[in-house]
Amino acid sequence: MTINIDDLAFECIIGILDFERLTPQRVNVNAEIIYDYQNMFIDYAKVTEHIKTSMKTKQFELIEEALISLQNSLKQDFKQIISLSLTISKPDILPDCRVSVTQILNY
Amino acid sequence: MTINIDDLAFECIIGILDFERLTPQRVNVNAEIIYDYQNMFIDYAKVTEHIKTSMKTKQFELIEEALISLQNSLKQDFKQIISLSLTISKPDILPDCRVSVTQILNY
Amino acid sequence: MTINIDDLAFECIIGILDFERLTPQRVNVNAEIIYDYQNMFIDYAKVTEHIKTSMKTKQFELIEEALISLQNSLKQDFKQIISLSLTISKPDILPDCRVSVTQILNY
Amino acid sequence: MTINIDDLAFECIIGILDFERLTPQRVNVNAEIIYDYQNMFIDYAKVTEHIKTSMKTKQFELIEEALISLQNSLKQDFKQIISLSLTISKPDILPDCRVSVTQILNY
Repeated sequence: MTINIDDLAFECIIGILDFERLTPQRVNVNAEIIYDYQNMFIDYAKVTEHIKTSMKTKQFELIEEALISLQNSLKQDFKQIISLSLTISKPDILPDCRVSVTQILNY
Repeated sequence: MTINIDDLAFECIIGILDFERLTPQRVNVNAEIIYDYQNMFIDYAKVTEHIKTSMKTKQFELIEEALISLQNSLKQDFKQIISLSLTISKPDILPDCRVSVTQILNY
Repeated sequence: MTINIDDLAFECIIGILDFERLTPQRVNVNAEIIYDYQNMFIDYAKVTEHIKTSMKTKQFELIEEALISLQNSLKQDFKQIISLSLTISKPDILPDCRVSVTQILNY
Repeated sequence: MTINIDDLAFECIIGILDFERLTPQRVNVNAEIIYDYQNMFIDYAKVTEHIKTSMKTKQFELIEEALISLQNSLKQDFKQIISLSLTISKPDILPDCRVSVTQILNY
């Protein structure tokens, strides 16, 4: 089974520029979670809480660091995960496009 | 040939929370149906009726259960199906994202 | 190189229902054309003209027939094509979803 | 890691038709950049500047030429790139569809 979380939207401190350390900015997270479903389902609401709490608390500098951290902590909390594709986007950081970074991990 | 049914929208009882057992909620179904076309086409209108009737009648608790049930019953009614990718989404269940579950089955 | 033609919109007679033989309906065509580019480019405007003329003239009954016919005739006119993915959708035929059929052919 | 640049929008001279050599037209660039992240991140803002400057300066005739040129010059400036998928679209060139050309290169 694959759980898809699309366009999870919230605000957090992320980035290396001066103003990015001071002001929370909008982020969008997309997750594709392949997991082993044997009468043991993953609660999607808990996954979204995990992602939001982690990113708001840890205030990452690079999107790349946030991706690596989430791939470790999500697997710890949801052991049935087989493969995880995560995309974090900063929709407001550049005026003429949308940028995001994706990492896919097969555990 | 692949028939694509995009964003089939209707309401049904689905979910494990108390209010989800009482009130029908909006669901969206996407299907990608790979089938053997030899002058025997699959009627897309009948596929959409099958999906709607099944989900409205069976009132599944988990999206995962709905996916497994539909993959069995669609194959029984449309024997030419070779492969089926089904996605069921509950667009209104979480306020800050869209969640869905996908299952792909090669028969 | 891959030429993408997205959401080519026009009207034509297509379908097997009585009213579909009488009244032109809106169709959307998507094409993904992988071709051998060696200083010989494919003119995307000619591809779109080919698709529109063929479907308006031949008035296919099944989308499946239109796909097979276009895959033959496009390859005849544009010999550099290596692979062709074609999707034809009838966006107005069902009230609660969008339906389309896709065929991929590697020549 | 994969950096995604979606719908980078700007104007430049591109095309072989007479009016296309005279008047800048809107283009949209999408890039998917797979790169080796080892504490050395790629600055997405620099990538977008590279693409815009190159296309505005070089005024390509064919989208295909722009793709080949960018695949060379981006790799020269960002040596960590492993694979690059580039799509350039001319959203206004045809009235009834959107056209684009994609090239994927694994270095």
